[in-house]
Amino acid sequence: MTDLNNNLTSNQPVKKLDSDGVFHSWSAQGSLDPLVIKSGSGCRLWDYEGREYLDFSSQLVNTNIGHQHPKVVSAIRAQLEELSTVAPAHANYARGLAAEKILARAPEGFHKVFFTNGGADANENAIRMARTITGRDKVLSSYRSYHGGTGSAIVATGDFRRVPNEYARAHVHFFTPYLYRSDFWAQNEEEESARALQHLRRVIEAEGPGSIAAILLETIPGTAGILTPPKGYLEGVRALADEFGIVLIFDEVMAGFGRTGKWLALDHFDVTPDLISFAKGVNSGYVPAGGVIISERISRYFDENMFFGGLTYSGHPLGMAAICGTLDAMEEEDIVGNAARIGSEVLAPGLKQIAEQHEVVGEVRGVGVFQAIELVEDRESRQPLNAKSMGQAKASMVESGLLPFVVANRIHVVPPCIVSVEEAKKGLSIISDVLGSIRR
Amino acid sequence: MTDLNNNLTSNQPVKKLDSDGVFHSWSAQGSLDPLVIKSGSGCRLWDYEGREYLDFSSQLVNTNIGHQHPKVVSAIRAQLEELSTVAPAHANYARGLAAEKILARAPEGFHKVFFTNGGADANENAIRMARTITGRDKVLSSYRSYHGGTGSAIVATGDFRRVPNEYARAHVHFFTPYLYRSDFWAQNEEEESARALQHLRRVIEAEGPGSIAAILLETIPGTAGILTPPKGYLEGVRALADEFGIVLIFDEVMAGFGRTGKWLALDHFDVTPDLISFAKGVNSGYVPAGGVIISERISRYFDENMFFGGLTYSGHPLGMAAICGTLDAMEEEDIVGNAARIGSEVLAPGLKQIAEQHEVVGEVRGVGVFQAIELVEDRESRQPLNAKSMGQAKASMVESGLLPFVVANRIHVVPPCIVSVEEAKKGLSIISDVLGSIRR
Repeated sequence: MTDLNNNLTSNQPVKKLDSDGVFHSWSAQGSLDPLVIKSGSGCRLWDYEGREYLDFSSQLVNTNIGHQHPKVVSAIRAQLEELSTVAPAHANYARGLAAEKILARAPEGFHKVFFTNGGADANENAIRMARTITGRDKVLSSYRSYHGGTGSAIVATGDFRRVPNEYARAHVHFFTPYLYRSDFWAQNEEEESARALQHLRRVIEAEGPGSIAAILLETIPGTAGILTPPKGYLEGVRALADEFGIVLIFDEVMAGFGRTGKWLALDHFDVTPDLISFAKGVNSGYVPAGGVIISERISRYFDENMFFGGLTYSGHPLGMAAICGTLDAMEEEDIVGNAARIGSEVLAPGLKQIAEQHEVVGEVRGVGVFQAIELVEDRESRQPLNAKSMGQAKASMVESGLLPFVVANRIHVVPPCIVSVEEAKKGLSIISDVLGSIRR
Repeated sequence: MTDLNNNLTSNQPVKKLDSDGVFHSWSAQGSLDPLVIKSGSGCRLWDYEGREYLDFSSQLVNTNIGHQHPKVVSAIRAQLEELSTVAPAHANYARGLAAEKILARAPEGFHKVFFTNGGADANENAIRMARTITGRDKVLSSYRSYHGGTGSAIVATGDFRRVPNEYARAHVHFFTPYLYRSDFWAQNEEEESARALQHLRRVIEAEGPGSIAAILLETIPGTAGILTPPKGYLEGVRALADEFGIVLIFDEVMAGFGRTGKWLALDHFDVTPDLISFAKGVNSGYVPAGGVIISERISRYFDENMFFGGLTYSGHPLGMAAICGTLDAMEEEDIVGNAARIGSEVLAPGLKQIAEQHEVVGEVRGVGVFQAIELVEDRESRQPLNAKSMGQAKASMVESGLLPFVVANRIHVVPPCIVSVEEAKKGLSIISDVLGSIRR
């Protein structure tokens, strides 16, 4: 039998195995030099040579509860001893409990949970429900978005990764608020919000309201830059959806379950969507799982009408156990409150200070442990900092023992929700040092 | 904390939790009455009231190694103690090992493994690779197929579930061999194979060879009816793919990893595809995982060229540990050999006998623990047995303690690969009794 808890003391054999057989995401494979990760605990990770990393990435912004949280590990272990897998058609205790716990965190009026393997197929199935209930085909989503890598999810995505995968029909993109780089020539948040809504209304009218099944939006767009919508925007989108009979889907895959310092990102706003997609934070990715939280109206429709969707691992017992353990621990240890406090008391003031100290910073923004530093060539033109300098900054952070989440010209400051004051300050201090050394 | 190993002695609370919060696949939700499953071992499953079921479904034809195999549970536990999750960009020992073990089972000339969450996104990414490397868009697949529930996978699917989800472009379907219900007016296997190839050539010519990126085929179509291709067919498809520069993808999600009594279903034929998608049997679904096995030519292309695809849980450590444990145990305990022996020595002769005894049986067919009984109104017309009788037969089997896998007018005989002679005989005997009681 393979010994997974091996006694390796060098990263080399793991790197060799990786480069021999593993094909990596979003890369040309010829020039990869991946970090080797052996184990982790809380916000720390280690390689085989004893090197320690402070995780300011939460991997792919998913380990909200940190690494190896004992309550989650123990819940998975308990289910593992009982039953590892079961078909979705059967009823299973862990699955029922997970649904109950998720619904307890959802807004009033949400009735059912459909479980998937992750965020992409959560969005796939939300889109499918919207198309089925409306009998319409078009899905409207933002150019500044990421919704996952499968057929419909990648085409709903707005960022550059959409383009070479654009093999679905009936997807239309529109522009969403981002005052720092306004697509609406706006001067302030109020103007940005009002113009973004007017733009969306024009797109709906011009596409034909009767052809639009859904508007799909990340409540707070994540990979696209952590772009908290201005006051009134999401409420205005809800009003447009109602006016034209369009299903409103909020993608909470990255922003949900503690990341923003609230249970769901939509708790920051006075708005309720029709469907909520989730994954990542719901169980910190300890076992692949995601899903769609379904409002009463849509749930009732499918009482009588067939739902044409499914997958082998829907409601997988280990994934469900991890959800139960995660949501219990987050509640018992006030992990969501910690994310809020670290965000407002350490990260936000710390980033403000970093912005004051370093000319290279164009803007800092965010909420909870969901914040970003946008780097620019100069503050006047706001031209994004060049890719070479970004690459160097990323390498310097890793060199200093910080695992960062770098996208385009931004450093996303996204540690686990359990991050301590000391760890948060240490991370900021490494970032500040690295920013100070950038030669443009 | 939630107690997942609870002391419930009734199914009722689990049913209640399920109907309160869980949204089920491929169903109207109003009239569900799911079986409750508490735990399992080998080919047996139990509910909370001590009722035992013999699993002749392998759930969704995925638990090839049976339930709770100690070596798989122990591999998952070992990884769980070390590191539950890690981002795909990093190198991880379990992931490298899993790739190595899978490549050792693949045909000569396969170089890399891209890991996904399951079979649907395995096919998504195989299609994506084919489109990228050819610069063409169309994907050809069979009307008799199932390839998964996400955007491109569901549209590649040929069965009825495709239709309400048909929101992708550049998918074309063709007919594939099925002598019992020939779409080519063929009288024997040789004719069926030759005509099916001629039909495929005509589709390629008429669609325009220069527009076709991939031909996607289940090596042995599963959900569509367990339709082993006749001699020469797959070899002929390979020749057509070569002639027109088309990427050939074999979907081994259901047929792979022991199911047919060989490691891969393609081992029954003299043919090598360019990409192989897999999931299910690779780790029996103990943790969601799937992927694409990539041939040298395609792997080399992506050394220099960006691959536009990825997902948060690609190469998830627990899924990878489950793969290592599963492939080790299958090797050490000759589980693939057992599937072959049970298939040829118990299931095939047993099904032949059943066909002789019961007029309602139109055809029996299959290989290994991948066999099917096709039921008909009468043997002359071959009209599929009506849905009501099928439903009654299914209910009778469950009543008798057998968990069957029923699709349309067929009973798929798909126990775990570890099934014993006694268990296989017991299952067949229940099926025979139930067939004897069918009133058409």
